[in-house]
Amino acid sequence: MKSYRKELWFSTSTRRALINITPEINKCLAESGVKEGLLLCNAMHITASVFINDDEAGLHHDYEVWLEKLAPEKPHSQYRHNGFEDNADAHMKRQIMGREVVVAITDGQLDFGPWEQIFYGEFDGKRKKRLLVKIIGE
Amino acid sequence: MKSYRKELWFSTSTRRALINITPEINKCLAESGVKEGLLLCNAMHITASVFINDDEAGLHHDYEVWLEKLAPEKPHSQYRHNGFEDNADAHMKRQIMGREVVVAITDGQLDFGPWEQIFYGEFDGKRKKRLLVKIIGE
Amino acid sequence: MKSYRKELWFSTSTRRALINITPEINKCLAESGVKEGLLLCNAMHITASVFINDDEAGLHHDYEVWLEKLAPEKPHSQYRHNGFEDNADAHMKRQIMGREVVVAITDGQLDFGPWEQIFYGEFDGKRKKRLLVKIIGE
Repeated sequence: MKSYRKELWFSTSTRRALINITPEINKCLAESGVKEGLLLCNAMHITASVFINDDEAGLHHDYEVWLEKLAPEKPHSQYRHNGFEDNADAHMKRQIMGREVVVAITDGQLDFGPWEQIFYGEFDGKRKKRLLVKIIGE
Repeated sequence: MKSYRKELWFSTSTRRALINITPEINKCLAESGVKEGLLLCNAMHITASVFINDDEAGLHHDYEVWLEKLAPEKPHSQYRHNGFEDNADAHMKRQIMGREVVVAITDGQLDFGPWEQIFYGEFDGKRKKRLLVKIIGE
Repeated sequence: MKSYRKELWFSTSTRRALINITPEINKCLAESGVKEGLLLCNAMHITASVFINDDEAGLHHDYEVWLEKLAPEKPHSQYRHNGFEDNADAHMKRQIMGREVVVAITDGQLDFGPWEQIFYGEFDGKRKKRLLVKIIGE
């Protein structure tokens, strides 16, 4: 069994951002040399997400509006977590969007449907944060 | 390490549907010959879900009502994604219900609690779509 | 390939509770002897969750309030599932918080960011329920 590990770092200029990381993940997979197996990609911070969906700007706008409706950032005082922090909403948004994805590896490729793209979802940015790529297989 | 891959195809007659796929997944597991390992099952489309819950018609009705409350389909014009599409709500419903499940395989069986059943959740149907089953182990 | 399996049992005194299970999961990992691989931890019941987030009491209070807003328990009669049951809301809360986590194992440790902790999320407690830990690797 082969195993591979890499951290990818991000520092967004805005509080919230969705970043297509599929090219970086493909690079990791090539480096790993794994042909058959599983790839785990997870946020290492608890106010961020890794998820798979469509790379379409209109949809990303809709996600922003929708997540703000389901778990509004403001007023910060509505959340008990926001004593010394102001990011309780980010802990909630990340539960809806998910911490991690597990992707099949077949013939050395991410085994994806036609529109699947992997995103890093930042909900409390403007600082250095990272995600983990772990691959196991043969 | 053994690995196994199969696609399962669906074409629902309604826009939204929940389909119990546990029998098909059990068939895949038997075909794979894997006794100890992990099984990944994920939607290959970004407006569909694979999730584990109860096979109870009342609950499935409740999910339909609940998902429509959290991410209503109409009016289509409320979503910027719906320029050429009308399925932005399906991209949201799938985030709540989840893209994938990972299931333990023990002694050649899905290692399930008493009520766990695997569902394909279709949120933008009436056309051919598919999911992926990937198994690794020994 | 090594594989390891363990069930962990819980019986909460309240209907809803969030329990930090990271110490128990670390014990499982040590028992498994796996140095490189993947760890799956999932609720075996469909009204409970396993998720990763922050161990902060204010945030846990916020989750309780938030989940009750998105999927209120009462009135029980609002859900069709609640004919003989009263736990439809728990089936929904668990979809938002998630059934399972998959965690990378590196050098015999859970490969975690600084604040990641694993929780058992009980949404229909006051009875014996369990989760599964499955580890594969080398």
